[in-house]
Amino acid sequence: MSTPVQATIRIPLRWRDMDMLGHLNQAVYHEFLEEARGALLESLPDMEHFPFVLVRVELDYRSEVRRELGHVDVTAAVERVGRTSITVAHDMLKPDGTVAASGRSVLVAWDPRARGARPLTDGERGALGG
Amino acid sequence: MSTPVQATIRIPLRWRDMDMLGHLNQAVYHEFLEEARGALLESLPDMEHFPFVLVRVELDYRSEVRRELGHVDVTAAVERVGRTSITVAHDMLKPDGTVAASGRSVLVAWDPRARGARPLTDGERGALGG
Amino acid sequence: MSTPVQATIRIPLRWRDMDMLGHLNQAVYHEFLEEARGALLESLPDMEHFPFVLVRVELDYRSEVRRELGHVDVTAAVERVGRTSITVAHDMLKPDGTVAASGRSVLVAWDPRARGARPLTDGERGALGG
Amino acid sequence: MSTPVQATIRIPLRWRDMDMLGHLNQAVYHEFLEEARGALLESLPDMEHFPFVLVRVELDYRSEVRRELGHVDVTAAVERVGRTSITVAHDMLKPDGTVAASGRSVLVAWDPRARGARPLTDGERGALGG
Repeated sequence: MSTPVQATIRIPLRWRDMDMLGHLNQAVYHEFLEEARGALLESLPDMEHFPFVLVRVELDYRSEVRRELGHVDVTAAVERVGRTSITVAHDMLKPDGTVAASGRSVLVAWDPRARGARPLTDGERGALGG
Repeated sequence: MSTPVQATIRIPLRWRDMDMLGHLNQAVYHEFLEEARGALLESLPDMEHFPFVLVRVELDYRSEVRRELGHVDVTAAVERVGRTSITVAHDMLKPDGTVAASGRSVLVAWDPRARGARPLTDGERGALGG
Repeated sequence: MSTPVQATIRIPLRWRDMDMLGHLNQAVYHEFLEEARGALLESLPDMEHFPFVLVRVELDYRSEVRRELGHVDVTAAVERVGRTSITVAHDMLKPDGTVAASGRSVLVAWDPRARGARPLTDGERGALGG
Repeated sequence: MSTPVQATIRIPLRWRDMDMLGHLNQAVYHEFLEEARGALLESLPDMEHFPFVLVRVELDYRSEVRRELGHVDVTAAVERVGRTSITVAHDMLKPDGTVAASGRSVLVAWDPRARGARPLTDGERGALGG
């Protein structure tokens, strides 16, 4: 019903991102997901009270990304809001719209003092569309 | 019945691997899985005829890794041999034996000329324990 | 007399670029210089006949770069054209114009077949303003 | 007269360290120098009171490093002890003893509260062989 809470960022490719075959290295995809998650969380109010830790990622690599593409666009969209965690869906698109990769991250709300998961507050839940 | 085909490598941590919180960065875990997969594939005969591409990864981050641990041990074990793909199980262990992360990669046998998946040969299947 | 041959690129900062102190990691500066050199060389005609290898770099780190700055601008300007090499001057600027770093790279024109340095051609020399 | 204060570390190469040409990427050399400086500083007493920041690096790339070499050895040796800074000489050696790179770092003793350089103490000076 409601629009999903999401963020999309454009990430220019760097030479250093490429592997020996001239493709975007598989680990660098995860740097890009991190950028998209950061953009998503920064778009929320009271982000500074809102530490999260990544507890799971799954990613399907769908098509190769070469340096000459110049950039990719990466999306992080809240897919599910749980009691202590959120699930975020990701897509990475090439300039022609082809899906380079798609996947999912699970983030847990973190209590830095107790060093453990904590329930999301009502305010957080609202901001996340949950 | 048979021993699984697997490889374990010890990876010293670098300062550059750490993030702003002093933990092993989430993307660097995937560099380490790549090292373990490389060690696994290099342990097979005829590896040079045996290109693979990563098509999927899933990883559960279970406990934080800090620089002072010095190193981690990462395992890649063949879990399933399909017609064109293999599934590899991963564990990352800290020096005290705690599991830092565990997950799974799917690799597809690649035909570089046709730029597509190809069936595993019988020889490959045997080497992989499938 | 003549305008120097140069290129400037804007590089968005990534979370992964930061070290444990929350600063741009010292090695990542060199990834950024590589981007600027790439932009410089790509701006030249016949770049595809023009392989170069980096043989020396020197860099002064002048002020810290933090993630919240968002981006830096990095320049590569041809400073000197030698018989087989070019010297490139670099500046990295923060959004407020402060110099984050400045330095110099030396690149050698490379003959891939002979695997050694080769003299610059007259065409290359002209393109480089030498 | 006295033996120089120095540290050497062996660094296994990772797939991710390699560039599109199959060589150790030029920026990764600087990650390796950082490891050697870390090993040097950790070998000193009272290291925890001894923060340093890198203010300059210069590096000559002498020969290519390929993945199949397996590892390199990197040295950091105190070359000069100044009033507020130390100069550290670096060599990176391949398994056959060939010099892959050599250079020099300048580190400044840092006062985190004043956010500025501070004089080395007599104890530090002694530990550094200055």
